[in-house]
Amino acid sequence: MAAFIEPKLLKGFRDFLPPAEMIRRHLTEKIEASFRSFGFVPIDTPALEYAEILLGKGGGETEKQIYRFKDNGERDVALRFDLTVPFARFVALHQAELTFPLKRYHIGKVWRGENAQRGRYREFTQCDFDIIGSDSPAADFEIILMIRAVLLNLGAGVSIRINHRGLFNRFLAHIGQREKSVEVLRTVDKIAKTGHDETAAALAAITGDAHARKILDFTAAVSGENFEETLNRITELSGGPSSESERLRLIRRFMNDTVSGGNSAEGGDFILDPSITRGLDYYTGVVFETFLTELPDIGSICSGGRYDNLAGLYSKNTAISGVGSSIGLDRMIAALENLNKLPAAASYAAAAIACLKPEDSGLYQALAQQFRQQGVPCEVFLEASSAGTSSAESAHPADAADPISGKQLVKQFVLAEKKGLRWMIIPGAEPLHDSLTLRDLAGRQNREGLSCTEAVQIIQRGVL
Amino acid sequence: MAAFIEPKLLKGFRDFLPPAEMIRRHLTEKIEASFRSFGFVPIDTPALEYAEILLGKGGGETEKQIYRFKDNGERDVALRFDLTVPFARFVALHQAELTFPLKRYHIGKVWRGENAQRGRYREFTQCDFDIIGSDSPAADFEIILMIRAVLLNLGAGVSIRINHRGLFNRFLAHIGQREKSVEVLRTVDKIAKTGHDETAAALAAITGDAHARKILDFTAAVSGENFEETLNRITELSGGPSSESERLRLIRRFMNDTVSGGNSAEGGDFILDPSITRGLDYYTGVVFETFLTELPDIGSICSGGRYDNLAGLYSKNTAISGVGSSIGLDRMIAALENLNKLPAAASYAAAAIACLKPEDSGLYQALAQQFRQQGVPCEVFLEASSAGTSSAESAHPADAADPISGKQLVKQFVLAEKKGLRWMIIPGAEPLHDSLTLRDLAGRQNREGLSCTEAVQIIQRGVL
Repeated sequence: MAAFIEPKLLKGFRDFLPPAEMIRRHLTEKIEASFRSFGFVPIDTPALEYAEILLGKGGGETEKQIYRFKDNGERDVALRFDLTVPFARFVALHQAELTFPLKRYHIGKVWRGENAQRGRYREFTQCDFDIIGSDSPAADFEIILMIRAVLLNLGAGVSIRINHRGLFNRFLAHIGQREKSVEVLRTVDKIAKTGHDETAAALAAITGDAHARKILDFTAAVSGENFEETLNRITELSGGPSSESERLRLIRRFMNDTVSGGNSAEGGDFILDPSITRGLDYYTGVVFETFLTELPDIGSICSGGRYDNLAGLYSKNTAISGVGSSIGLDRMIAALENLNKLPAAASYAAAAIACLKPEDSGLYQALAQQFRQQGVPCEVFLEASSAGTSSAESAHPADAADPISGKQLVKQFVLAEKKGLRWMIIPGAEPLHDSLTLRDLAGRQNREGLSCTEAVQIIQRGVL
Repeated sequence: MAAFIEPKLLKGFRDFLPPAEMIRRHLTEKIEASFRSFGFVPIDTPALEYAEILLGKGGGETEKQIYRFKDNGERDVALRFDLTVPFARFVALHQAELTFPLKRYHIGKVWRGENAQRGRYREFTQCDFDIIGSDSPAADFEIILMIRAVLLNLGAGVSIRINHRGLFNRFLAHIGQREKSVEVLRTVDKIAKTGHDETAAALAAITGDAHARKILDFTAAVSGENFEETLNRITELSGGPSSESERLRLIRRFMNDTVSGGNSAEGGDFILDPSITRGLDYYTGVVFETFLTELPDIGSICSGGRYDNLAGLYSKNTAISGVGSSIGLDRMIAALENLNKLPAAASYAAAAIACLKPEDSGLYQALAQQFRQQGVPCEVFLEASSAGTSSAESAHPADAADPISGKQLVKQFVLAEKKGLRWMIIPGAEPLHDSLTLRDLAGRQNREGLSCTEAVQIIQRGVL
């Protein structure tokens, strides 16, 4: 006998069993339906690319986390760690073939060799959506509006916290600290994690005490949910009206026009928050983070912003600007689970044909085909007796006496319930499709003597 | 300025631009819909696993092709090269949590560092479907029937060539060559590629001339499309009726009962072909290959068979038998393209709102939301003027004189056509949703003065 290999997974990697995978597929399909309803189109890129392309200018963190190796041809390759860098490479490579503005989405797996001890995954799914080739404030707004639409479609209320990096930089220039921008923005980005005092100390180390106080005044200028007041305050702090402040004003107008037809009552979905900066270098304009109204503490579940020159590293052509965002599917599922908003797992089939005589399997398949053709997805049970447990069988005590329900049939009812099926179709005598018995597994009741069409009607009505 | 990185792909890897990816998504969704209509449920497994698990007993070919490397924790890992081996590991690991018989599908990417010179891809998508935990002939039949259902749903007629490895082995035992089984089956498997003479020589080298002739008689016993005659002949050649020949007889009965209610007129979809053996070691029962009726020369597009002990390498528990098959998405797409059966790429949005005044973007989004709520996926154009080319604009000459169609609007029509949109919605004066103009881009005609609901009705009817 061959040596036995222990069937184990790599740390940080996961299998998805049918109930979990069905929920993942369901949510992915809902997210995708939202993208499509806005006219966004999908792309795909390889999991594996030249390491040089994925690492680009090379961030220290990325370099430590990336799965990088030499392939059989001694090429230096790596697994993608996000969908943004491959998209930049994609745009540079296919610029001439693409129609701009391009509204694209990309749902795919990415890999990061993170410290798995903190319960982080090393393989996870991202859902990215971007508009590129448009510098319009309307594009900034559409991405923000889509975040809200996607999350509402998943049953979750959100507040989207928005800022403008360019306005932040204008403020820093106004106080003479423009050249410290990168460090300041990165420090401010961590304020929710590190707290006020630590941030103040870190800022003081970068800009000195007086400027640090001014910066914290700026980031704290958020006036509750009043977008306009906050905007007026940070416009003033940054030296008066500018193209950046006017862009935010226009986006605010769009919000009012769309969400409540000019009435800002629902405006709480969109909050101007000058402390939002995003850590990533490539953002140059509007930036945003999204928090679940009912679960703000898990942090941002969907972040993004505008970048001036996404493909600049790979293309000498004119800069292509864009705006985009990304939903982490795993974090989203964890959040929805926490909120008890995950759908119940049910079978894709509405009904199953019971197996009374295995040699009639061909006739059962013909019957199932009739149900499918009438719009009822239908499974065929393949064996007269299946592996139901006796404790579960006792849930169907009435059936033991029923003429159509021998012990074998009860086992099939139990299996069907386990699979999340609602209906069981018990074939009649020959011709077996003329006199069907339909069993409501939840209600534990039967209707006899049905034609296929009658059974379809009951199943579609949902009531026996 | 930072050094410029050439935006190139690894050889054998592909990007999918929106038109191609939309077709891929469309076909994947159709395949998935077929799986679901039979009550099959999805699973997912990691792209990366311990190399030891993926390589198992280690086939020479696999070892050469696999992407294998040491991860940051010095683990010996590899990218999956098919979905079957991870499924075996999955079943062994989760046996206690799964409900059997399990009907599962898995659609995912796999990676093989093949010789890319022959136009083979190194990253491609497989669509696997299996029934495990049932030894029933009804399960063999259901997999075969599903192949046919999936392909019919894609618009392609098929002939599925079926054999039984156990019956072939019984025949080999009958002529005293049972111990040569592995070599003989592998040699016969290549008969379509190598031809009769080369196969005869190779078989003679294994079994001697006399036996080689008998083996070729057996594999050539296919009587055109008459399943029964072929079955009678190979039953006789293998020493008379056996459990294997009776299983094939039962499967044939199922085919008749399902496909034509007992009439075998359509039986040509299923052909008993004793030369089908499949090269892979793990098949023990029924095996099959699928050929497109209109394009048989591209070879089998969907193969599979029954295995006795899928998870045996990873589990000491009772053997779990099953039967399954796999569709290669890329080969399928190439075949459908060849047959001119790929759907035309069209936008997911049915209509787009034209942008007349960029500052009204919020109102356009509100209008689009009304269309979406009434079931019309709707894009919003973000800029008053877009990058249409002047040659394409001349396709809309009548519009230049039209009062609502300035040069900017014509550019938007051109962009909308490029995106595959059918309808363009031109907002009216304030309130802009009360007097819409609907343009049929294909017919180049307008209807004016419509309410949103009226426009929705026209779009859903499909006629202006």
